[in-house]
Amino acid sequence: MKAVILSIGQELTSGQTVDTNSAWLSQKLGERGIETIEHRTVADQRRQIADAIAESVKKVDLLIVTGGLGPTEDDLTRFALADVLGVELVVDAAAMEHMEAFFRGRGWRMSESNRVQAMAPKGANMLPNLLGTAPGLACRIGAADVYVMPGVPYEMKDMYARCVAPHLPAQRGAIIHHILHTFGAGESNVGAAIADLMKRDSNPLVGTTVAGGMVSIRIISKASTADEARELANATARQVKERLGAFVVGEGDDTMASVVGGLLRRAGATLSTAESCTGGMVGEMITAVPGSSEYYTGGVVAYANQVKMQLLGVSEQMLVEHGAVSEPVAMQMAVGARERFNTTWAVSITGVAGPGGGTEAKPVGLVYVGLAGKDCRLVERLMIPGLRDIVRLRASLNALNILRMRLIG
Amino acid sequence: MKAVILSIGQELTSGQTVDTNSAWLSQKLGERGIETIEHRTVADQRRQIADAIAESVKKVDLLIVTGGLGPTEDDLTRFALADVLGVELVVDAAAMEHMEAFFRGRGWRMSESNRVQAMAPKGANMLPNLLGTAPGLACRIGAADVYVMPGVPYEMKDMYARCVAPHLPAQRGAIIHHILHTFGAGESNVGAAIADLMKRDSNPLVGTTVAGGMVSIRIISKASTADEARELANATARQVKERLGAFVVGEGDDTMASVVGGLLRRAGATLSTAESCTGGMVGEMITAVPGSSEYYTGGVVAYANQVKMQLLGVSEQMLVEHGAVSEPVAMQMAVGARERFNTTWAVSITGVAGPGGGTEAKPVGLVYVGLAGKDCRLVERLMIPGLRDIVRLRASLNALNILRMRLIG
Repeated sequence: MKAVILSIGQELTSGQTVDTNSAWLSQKLGERGIETIEHRTVADQRRQIADAIAESVKKVDLLIVTGGLGPTEDDLTRFALADVLGVELVVDAAAMEHMEAFFRGRGWRMSESNRVQAMAPKGANMLPNLLGTAPGLACRIGAADVYVMPGVPYEMKDMYARCVAPHLPAQRGAIIHHILHTFGAGESNVGAAIADLMKRDSNPLVGTTVAGGMVSIRIISKASTADEARELANATARQVKERLGAFVVGEGDDTMASVVGGLLRRAGATLSTAESCTGGMVGEMITAVPGSSEYYTGGVVAYANQVKMQLLGVSEQMLVEHGAVSEPVAMQMAVGARERFNTTWAVSITGVAGPGGGTEAKPVGLVYVGLAGKDCRLVERLMIPGLRDIVRLRASLNALNILRMRLIG
Repeated sequence: MKAVILSIGQELTSGQTVDTNSAWLSQKLGERGIETIEHRTVADQRRQIADAIAESVKKVDLLIVTGGLGPTEDDLTRFALADVLGVELVVDAAAMEHMEAFFRGRGWRMSESNRVQAMAPKGANMLPNLLGTAPGLACRIGAADVYVMPGVPYEMKDMYARCVAPHLPAQRGAIIHHILHTFGAGESNVGAAIADLMKRDSNPLVGTTVAGGMVSIRIISKASTADEARELANATARQVKERLGAFVVGEGDDTMASVVGGLLRRAGATLSTAESCTGGMVGEMITAVPGSSEYYTGGVVAYANQVKMQLLGVSEQMLVEHGAVSEPVAMQMAVGARERFNTTWAVSITGVAGPGGGTEAKPVGLVYVGLAGKDCRLVERLMIPGLRDIVRLRASLNALNILRMRLIG
């Protein structure tokens, strides 16, 4: 079974609101083995909505529509649906009663305009809305099942669970999404390493995405049962891991920080941080992980040189000779943090995040990340392309990654 | 001029990633008076992408496509575009040179797979990508201008500003989006204060959204010229500001941190931070603002009590008597940071971010934010509902906000 998800609303096409309903629905459908082949969003225009519905039902056997069921003049989805069906709108007595009860129950006056919400295209079924005034609609157009729900996310999610999911035909197949997160290889190298696994129309289907500074590998497998699909995905995941080795940071909800945290916990080790250009981003990432107090004691944000000297013991001579963005300063920052915080490990970052502050010798994007441990003193020199946010993000991930590489040996 | 925005990617149609590019692009086009009539998202399937392009260019005179330009097997947008144009892909010498330079400049090895990114459908123009390896594409299909950009948001935004916006025809009508950011009032209170301005179908159209812990007010005005539309929006913005006063933090691209930074700069004042449960988030927010080194010297992430004592001079007695999450400890953290960093101001945060660590007396969401200045010692007690991420975000914004309120008097 294949689906199209259609969202209705001027606030979406104008960019005032980001559509999150479609992604949520695609995930839910995917869990049931239903593949979403397209998301589509059109404004509150009766003709446009009707065209989008008519075109979609030709392509797939499931169309889910959200939005445009409200009481105002620009809520036109039910009219467009009636146009496509070639029928009139008729009042649904039960829906009218339910809506009147909804208003009575809250001691609100029901305005005339609400009455239209109790109207459905002749032959369509009403889907009760327990959280709002706009019922949903269900009907069949040609070979496609069509469900129309309100655009308000929590109303839609409740209605989907009660009125749509239970009626979706059980799929013979199941679709499993297995995601691996890599760091340090670059998307093109990752792609080259697994090119043969990424052939189109293969099962599992393998793809890559760049998000949050990491390259993620999606493994989407289809099989007759969820277990088979999972086994299929796991087999491919094992191949990917063999080829990419230590570039693979984690899976699913893992983050660089949660993986490093797990390694520190297992090693019974502790960590502190010394950050300049990232201003606390590494600490923020580490402490975003619940329970990070088990291994993270804290850090210094040494933005000014004075702070680098005073709180981390970086020598003035080093700062004068080599500058704040240099290998020896990165090293002293890490060593200084490790001593002061008395931790097993300390990571440090100093760099030019931009947009200003770059020079010929030290351009924007130049970053040194340091790692200090018992018998370990490492500094990596990075040239990170991109804007300030990206330089800081990639610098922070690199700082955690050199520690990760060390911890996994 | 009307536009369709087409997004390419399995990660979008499967719901793994929420498409934010389309909303951003619609806003930018709207600012130029170009109406987006449809958003559409299809998976990485050559045929589907080609069909979506072919159908879209029949409807509108501007088609913007994002995604599918990467170097891997599942990046098929350029192939689909060539299919629609009925031409071959040819190597663009300049693009190849630019890409080789991009890799040389970073001392990276360019993998074979990258070469495809220097290929364009015969007759199409390459749009240089200054932040990544995938150039964009521009061509004309029938009566429509077609621009194809990478899906990575920051690459897309930079390319749009340089290579697309300047070439969009001037429109007669203009749509202006004016955005005000508020903090501390709560969405329902903001809504109540400006209810009369939020009437549907009015011009400007006013709406509220919650994002990043702030309540934003969107003012969308239409007029025959950008100046008229801007004046219309400004008039409404003035009304909103009169009613919400100090709750209004800033406008447009302002962030809490950039606004506080501006106030500090104007006052010639400096700031340091002392963070416990936020782990560096406040420092990260402050330093996300270019030029923040002018007023921010640094901070201490005092996650462990030992660090609170050692680096911030919090007394052991206070920690024993009142616990780490308490008013006196928040105060000592701020005072300690201000002394050690020798800054005009210091803010501190200590709290229970959860999910664990809550008690009857000190539940998850209990946060104290402190402010220390020359003749100023403030601590605010907050109870922040929500998950760990939200507690940390709201705590960080509150810490910056008490300083903001103090600085604006």
